Amino acid sequence: MSNVLRRTSVALLCIMYYALCVNAAEVKSPNGNIVLNFSVEQGRPVYSVTYKGRDVILPSHLGLELAKDKHASAQFSETDLMDGFSIENEETSTFDETWQPVWGETRDIRNHYNELAVTLSRKWTSQPPKSANGAQLAPRRHNRTIIIRFRVFDDGVGFRYEFPQQPDLNYFLIKEERTEFSMAGDHTAWWLPGDYDTQEQETQECRLSEIRGRMQQAVNWGNSSVAVFSETGVQTSLQMKSQDGLYINIHEAACLDYATMHLELVDADTKHLSEKLGGGSNAYTPDPKPSDYPLPKPFTFVSHLTPDATGLKGAMQTPCETPWRTIMVSDDARDMLSSNLILNLNEPCKIEDTSWIHPTKYCGVWWEMIVGKSSWNYTDEFPSIKLDQIDWNSVKPNGRHAANNEKVKRYIDFAAKNGLDQVLVEGWNVGWEDWANMWKRDVFDFQTPYPDFDIKMLNDYAHSKGVKLLMHHETSSSTQNYERHIEKAFQLMNKYGYDAVKTGYVGDIIPRGDHHYSQSMNNHYLYVIKEAAKHHIMVNSHEATRPTGLCRTYPNLVGGESARGTEYEAFGGSRPDHTCILPFTRLQGGPMDYTPGIFETKLSSWSDNTSWARITIAGSLALYLTMYSPLQMAADLPENYEKFDDAFQFIRDVACDWDDSRYLEAEPADYITVARKAKGTDNWFIGGKCDENGHQSIVRLDFLDKGRKYDCTIYADAKDAHYDTNPKAYTITRRVVKRGDVLKVKEAPGGGFAVSLIAR
Amino acid sequence: MSNVLRRTSVALLCIMYYALCVNAAEVKSPNGNIVLNFSVEQGRPVYSVTYKGRDVILPSHLGLELAKDKHASAQFSETDLMDGFSIENEETSTFDETWQPVWGETRDIRNHYNELAVTLSRKWTSQPPKSANGAQLAPRRHNRTIIIRFRVFDDGVGFRYEFPQQPDLNYFLIKEERTEFSMAGDHTAWWLPGDYDTQEQETQECRLSEIRGRMQQAVNWGNSSVAVFSETGVQTSLQMKSQDGLYINIHEAACLDYATMHLELVDADTKHLSEKLGGGSNAYTPDPKPSDYPLPKPFTFVSHLTPDATGLKGAMQTPCETPWRTIMVSDDARDMLSSNLILNLNEPCKIEDTSWIHPTKYCGVWWEMIVGKSSWNYTDEFPSIKLDQIDWNSVKPNGRHAANNEKVKRYIDFAAKNGLDQVLVEGWNVGWEDWANMWKRDVFDFQTPYPDFDIKMLNDYAHSKGVKLLMHHETSSSTQNYERHIEKAFQLMNKYGYDAVKTGYVGDIIPRGDHHYSQSMNNHYLYVIKEAAKHHIMVNSHEATRPTGLCRTYPNLVGGESARGTEYEAFGGSRPDHTCILPFTRLQGGPMDYTPGIFETKLSSWSDNTSWARITIAGSLALYLTMYSPLQMAADLPENYEKFDDAFQFIRDVACDWDDSRYLEAEPADYITVARKAKGTDNWFIGGKCDENGHQSIVRLDFLDKGRKYDCTIYADAKDAHYDTNPKAYTITRRVVKRGDVLKVKEAPGGGFAVSLIAR
Repeated sequence: MSNVLRRTSVALLCIMYYALCVNAAEVKSPNGNIVLNFSVEQGRPVYSVTYKGRDVILPSHLGLELAKDKHASAQFSETDLMDGFSIENEETSTFDETWQPVWGETRDIRNHYNELAVTLSRKWTSQPPKSANGAQLAPRRHNRTIIIRFRVFDDGVGFRYEFPQQPDLNYFLIKEERTEFSMAGDHTAWWLPGDYDTQEQETQECRLSEIRGRMQQAVNWGNSSVAVFSETGVQTSLQMKSQDGLYINIHEAACLDYATMHLELVDADTKHLSEKLGGGSNAYTPDPKPSDYPLPKPFTFVSHLTPDATGLKGAMQTPCETPWRTIMVSDDARDMLSSNLILNLNEPCKIEDTSWIHPTKYCGVWWEMIVGKSSWNYTDEFPSIKLDQIDWNSVKPNGRHAANNEKVKRYIDFAAKNGLDQVLVEGWNVGWEDWANMWKRDVFDFQTPYPDFDIKMLNDYAHSKGVKLLMHHETSSSTQNYERHIEKAFQLMNKYGYDAVKTGYVGDIIPRGDHHYSQSMNNHYLYVIKEAAKHHIMVNSHEATRPTGLCRTYPNLVGGESARGTEYEAFGGSRPDHTCILPFTRLQGGPMDYTPGIFETKLSSWSDNTSWARITIAGSLALYLTMYSPLQMAADLPENYEKFDDAFQFIRDVACDWDDSRYLEAEPADYITVARKAKGTDNWFIGGKCDENGHQSIVRLDFLDKGRKYDCTIYADAKDAHYDTNPKAYTITRRVVKRGDVLKVKEAPGGGFAVSLIAR
Repeated sequence: MSNVLRRTSVALLCIMYYALCVNAAEVKSPNGNIVLNFSVEQGRPVYSVTYKGRDVILPSHLGLELAKDKHASAQFSETDLMDGFSIENEETSTFDETWQPVWGETRDIRNHYNELAVTLSRKWTSQPPKSANGAQLAPRRHNRTIIIRFRVFDDGVGFRYEFPQQPDLNYFLIKEERTEFSMAGDHTAWWLPGDYDTQEQETQECRLSEIRGRMQQAVNWGNSSVAVFSETGVQTSLQMKSQDGLYINIHEAACLDYATMHLELVDADTKHLSEKLGGGSNAYTPDPKPSDYPLPKPFTFVSHLTPDATGLKGAMQTPCETPWRTIMVSDDARDMLSSNLILNLNEPCKIEDTSWIHPTKYCGVWWEMIVGKSSWNYTDEFPSIKLDQIDWNSVKPNGRHAANNEKVKRYIDFAAKNGLDQVLVEGWNVGWEDWANMWKRDVFDFQTPYPDFDIKMLNDYAHSKGVKLLMHHETSSSTQNYERHIEKAFQLMNKYGYDAVKTGYVGDIIPRGDHHYSQSMNNHYLYVIKEAAKHHIMVNSHEATRPTGLCRTYPNLVGGESARGTEYEAFGGSRPDHTCILPFTRLQGGPMDYTPGIFETKLSSWSDNTSWARITIAGSLALYLTMYSPLQMAADLPENYEKFDDAFQFIRDVACDWDDSRYLEAEPADYITVARKAKGTDNWFIGGKCDENGHQSIVRLDFLDKGRKYDCTIYADAKDAHYDTNPKAYTITRRVVKRGDVLKVKEAPGGGFAVSLIAR
């Protein structure tokens, strides 16, 4: 599992050039279903998209508002890249290659698109100041060119702005990107409230016209939202469904050194963009200024970037480009899940030797702290601590510290016995006594273990059993502090044999005023990934910005959180349909460390926590298939798994890297069924997960090898299973199957099923 | 010169305790001249200071306004530390020790003061929210205590706020410190406009009542001011003189992980504090909010801290304290210059082995770039560059790059021949093509030399001649970028044998929104000093915050800029009295790398630059005495020195570390004369510098050893010398002198003199 070849083969590369003096262009997807039109109207770039002749994006403007830079000379007072454009050149080309990811849902990924690159020119004249002798100098002519590049795939469209290096555009500040996505109707949307710092809310489902009315509830219901910017601001990836059955998804790809994009919906009540939402907002956030440009028509989303501490959206140096803005579209919901459009829009792998990158199944000293039965911190002796002023060997232990030698050894034993690769240990390092929300800069050093965590002994012990420990670096969002210690922290990992780190960004960003999804923070996350790669360390980044497919370029980014994960089952719980939405939204940009596998869903059965997970055991097993990730946790306690060892067998067996994947059934927030072929084997695994209504799944085994027999084990909900009243009722059925057989499995409310198919 | 012993001997330590339930206290300086009174009036702390019975500080309030932290629970809605106080305890003590600095103006420094520590208590009650079952819980009692500690020396007063760790005060955010300094009259002040990012303006001299009217001129005349906050905001150290001849200086000591303090004057026109100055301000700076508390009476200065990007002034964790606020006072201007009050208020040296720290005389490849004759950058080929995209060996050189092998070798030869210890080379490393004011984060890597700078060869060459190179790290204020590279940059210095670095912070701070003098930036500067110390590297920090005596605690901080230096002689010039003010203001907190020694003052004589230095050659020599620094540059070009080799002899001879210093004559902005005894020798050097009016200096040699003879060389202005019309006219006179002799030396307008006294 640990060595995955990465080969890129260009199957077909055919480029056609032509240059025309026109003001419109059209490009189609390879299969002709998707048509993109581009034109310049009254100097403003406009695009539209259709799918099988039906409107996906109505004519929508493109452009960026720039901020005046105090350093720029007067001749650049013409700052905007919004209007005054004419088409200077158009190029179309076709690209078709098949590449192999280091890890993924399929062995091969086809990257096939038709491209349109439009060069736009914006000319103006400036009047230089008078010369020293009072002479009036001749007016100066200026010309700025930008390129808008469209790629039209069979499963959607990607486009971005490119800024070539040029005398009149070297450095610029972005006031706001003004990319519009004009919807053709009052679609149903699955959305999160726009927020600069968290994506951990519950997903809202409603018509576009209902978003404004639902916003306050969305904010209050979810995680405490600290930086909501608009009454109609939503996050991406945004999944929609038109009333006539078109599935449309808007997100972005390859967000590198650029602010994360949100979408702001123009509705009938919109007076100007970026209306400030009362309550729950961050008092320290500068108010985004409303835009000067006229509002587009209702049901249009306009991009809204995450600001820096000054309210600006980005500082750019040419040559550069924005991330790709992506629009996935199909009349089959399954195509939303099998699409590789976002990965394809990212750059190929930049890590030469990827032999050290490997999918990983792990357990961890984690859930019992999340539930509240034990603690990350070692002592309760002090109202606050300063790392350089504590003698840890003489402080009074609180007796609740989870990351102790004895417990960690028990987890190592459990991992070794059950074929799990690694053991995550949170709370191993000093600083947890007052780690969060104190505006405390020097909160962790990432190097000093608590006295009851013998880092050398425990790593040696784990290695002797064929297991590795998984490092944890909670930064408390004090990014400067993390960067100051990162090199030594990674050296420590190398010294003791860790090869993966879970990073965390809980709380407000330090430096104060910055946000989790700003340009500078996105640069920070990438910095960590690159520095980790130098040390052959895989990264699993929690509370970081939502992913945009960068794992293709940097496959040591093996996972992330950036959504409402399993931890919320201990914080009041998530709706049963939550995991039937995430693959349509959060997972579009890359795998999520969802940490599934809670078997004892009623936490009060073993703790004082009254929260509970709205899922059956069979449903929990399904998540190892439906929530694709090369990093899969068995999140529950060893003693809870030991009570259901026959069901746990599936977690022991299931792969976490794949040669093939087939999405068999899918409907957002209702159900997802997927079959996957384990990497380098002939074995298949199937998972089906449904919402609170249950689901009758019918699985045709027409993907199996012809003439071959498979030992099939079906982990299903018992007849009377129910996520609330009877979550632990499951059946395990064994039979022998062959290609063409049909499995009919009934999923309980909040339930699901899992199947292993071992080739004979 | 390189090994200086540091010994601290406590001569006398006598502490007296008493605890009283009173609301007032008085403490006097050891000689009784200064009396400090403290009381609590209507719940607000008040202090006043007299000197020989004359008012220095009229009754003035003390306190801090805190910001509400969104993370704090409701019980902390009582946030301010402004009023509601009662005195809980008072302690007085006496301290007297003599300590030895690693380098300095004198071998021994006496630290003698009487101390008053007042513990103040602020009690309040909060009403907890109703419990889950609706029951009203009992009100909760709170108590916050702070300590205000006063130290009364013979030369002034220092005081600070201390915040012990306590349940009701663990973390807090500072909205504004509200320390008042109420002046007893309409004093003359030498001031710089308050600014969060620069101290490089020309000093203004006027009455307090005239500051408001002079502000716009002060801003426009000086360096471009980017963050002026008030019509009456000024910087510290602020030197004043009362109309009856009292010299008063307000500054701060030991500013550690706290924002730099400015002073805002309340005058007759003040409506509220922190009025925003129109024009010249930074559009991205959040407006500081006016304070809620009533204005003090006119002629009162109120502290105004430098904000972070959100407008907050600081994030604190107890136990902690503010810097010391210092008030120096005397009826003799010379006492302002000989005072060690600020050093005494800093902590003793924290570097155990200081053997590698040494005073340094240096020259450098610098002045010709400042003047504009050559360039820092290597190529003009690109409109902008990205470090990782340039093959430096194939770019086209611009032919003006100064830091080339040939030129650096010439400077090394010059240093070796003239006994200079080091050669600074700026522009040695790639990135200077577009280094400033572009909001460019990744501007330098501090490791890659330009192709024409052979770092190994040049260091080897220098070492073979007994000379070291002096490293240069211009950060372009991209502090995150510097911190990411600092460890490898220091390793490079160790590898090639550098032991000192000049750092630079030109331009706006990145992360955007931060300021040069904020808490986070002050923490950054200290981080650099501490990291450098680990590598045995001395630091000379340009454009950093103004110093506050930290060089006592971290003596590898051997110099800094933080004021208008010699470079401005190439940018239009500074007034002749500039160097007669700086020792009263900028130098109070620590030595300045003023880079004196310009002999060819009319730059047009050797370049296209029409600027000129308003000083005579004899005056330039005087600066090596009057502008105390352990780091002294001979800033002019070797060929310019070679033309005046007999005058240059003084620069060759003069020491830069001292066993004793005697300020003989002084008046702010008029003249300064000082005699210093070279470290570990019996030789003395004297310097006298005056303003544009000239000065008749009378120096009584009563500090020489009794019965000993000295070879005396006097470098004086010629009779007709003048800083403009005849700057290069000097005389060199030799005689033998003894204790009690009197030297009468006439200083020309903008001139001065220098004397060496070599013991026979």
